Amino acid sequence: MTTTTEIQETVLNGVNVTRLGQTIEAIRQQPELANFKFRARNRWDLGIHTVATISDFYGTCQEMQHKAPFVLDSDEPPVLLGGDTGAGAAEYVLAALSACLTGTLAYHASARGLKIEDIQSNYEGDIDLRGFLDLDPRVRNGYREIRVKFKVKGDLDAATVSELLSKSPVFDTLANPVKIKIEVEKV
Amino acid sequence: MTTTTEIQETVLNGVNVTRLGQTIEAIRQQPELANFKFRARNRWDLGIHTVATISDFYGTCQEMQHKAPFVLDSDEPPVLLGGDTGAGAAEYVLAALSACLTGTLAYHASARGLKIEDIQSNYEGDIDLRGFLDLDPRVRNGYREIRVKFKVKGDLDAATVSELLSKSPVFDTLANPVKIKIEVEKV
Repeated sequence: MTTTTEIQETVLNGVNVTRLGQTIEAIRQQPELANFKFRARNRWDLGIHTVATISDFYGTCQEMQHKAPFVLDSDEPPVLLGGDTGAGAAEYVLAALSACLTGTLAYHASARGLKIEDIQSNYEGDIDLRGFLDLDPRVRNGYREIRVKFKVKGDLDAATVSELLSKSPVFDTLANPVKIKIEVEKV
Repeated sequence: MTTTTEIQETVLNGVNVTRLGQTIEAIRQQPELANFKFRARNRWDLGIHTVATISDFYGTCQEMQHKAPFVLDSDEPPVLLGGDTGAGAAEYVLAALSACLTGTLAYHASARGLKIEDIQSNYEGDIDLRGFLDLDPRVRNGYREIRVKFKVKGDLDAATVSELLSKSPVFDTLANPVKIKIEVEKV
């Protein structure tokens, strides 16, 4: 005798909402499934050119691998004495924020059954290099401010979009302090 | 009559130290040269797949372009309901930090005349997804902690490396709060 079990899965905006609901329920039952450790390694090339590689992470209580490693070159433009062979480090911050805000909107809108037609956003952040160059101790080294503009087409009104964007992990990472521990070994 | 002016430039670790010194001196004379505005734009593709593009920026009192636009795909692995077509947003944060710490070391070590032979570093950061998924209001949405390990070969001792790393703009951006303003328009 053969028993066929048909599982109806709902996919909205390319997000499998059925599996998202199952994931949330599984974490509610077993909170340690929610502990993720993301990783990167970096090797200096020459000048300001560096190469980051992202291949493995930990999540749902197990070690996991990406399908293939992601290799991210970073450099600076000639005005900052680089070879312009990759986006700058500060630009990678904006890319991270943009991916996270947009992805957060896609996850949470889908979970609420709201259809998205298009999401576009623009980012601009201010860095005064006098901080980095030790020319003025009153000037901070990093971003002073980041401005973001979203244009969203779909079932979401602007207030809902703003509410959902505020859940973004990278938004929180940038808006609030993160503890960073650095160990150095001379080899 | 032909006059030949020979300018002796010093390059160390691939960094043009002569031009770095000239840049610092120019900013000392005219501080507004130090105001940089970095930019990105992002377009949602489908699911959690987003595409960031970085092409222009403002610095040294003028609009500038990268040689070519940098296109950065971001996605999430299947366990996070994505297609794994690019590094995740939180992983891009680690890539940004790694590029900035390493680049900062290359700039400042070169300015001090210290030769670098090799720089390698590893990054690991903790995110508890219960924050993002609204399962526990006590859990923050972003990184709780990021751990970094540096291995440096060259003229720098570990204390100097630690001192120079602390100047990194992305380190400051993550370790201290950044003001982020988000505007939303429904189109």
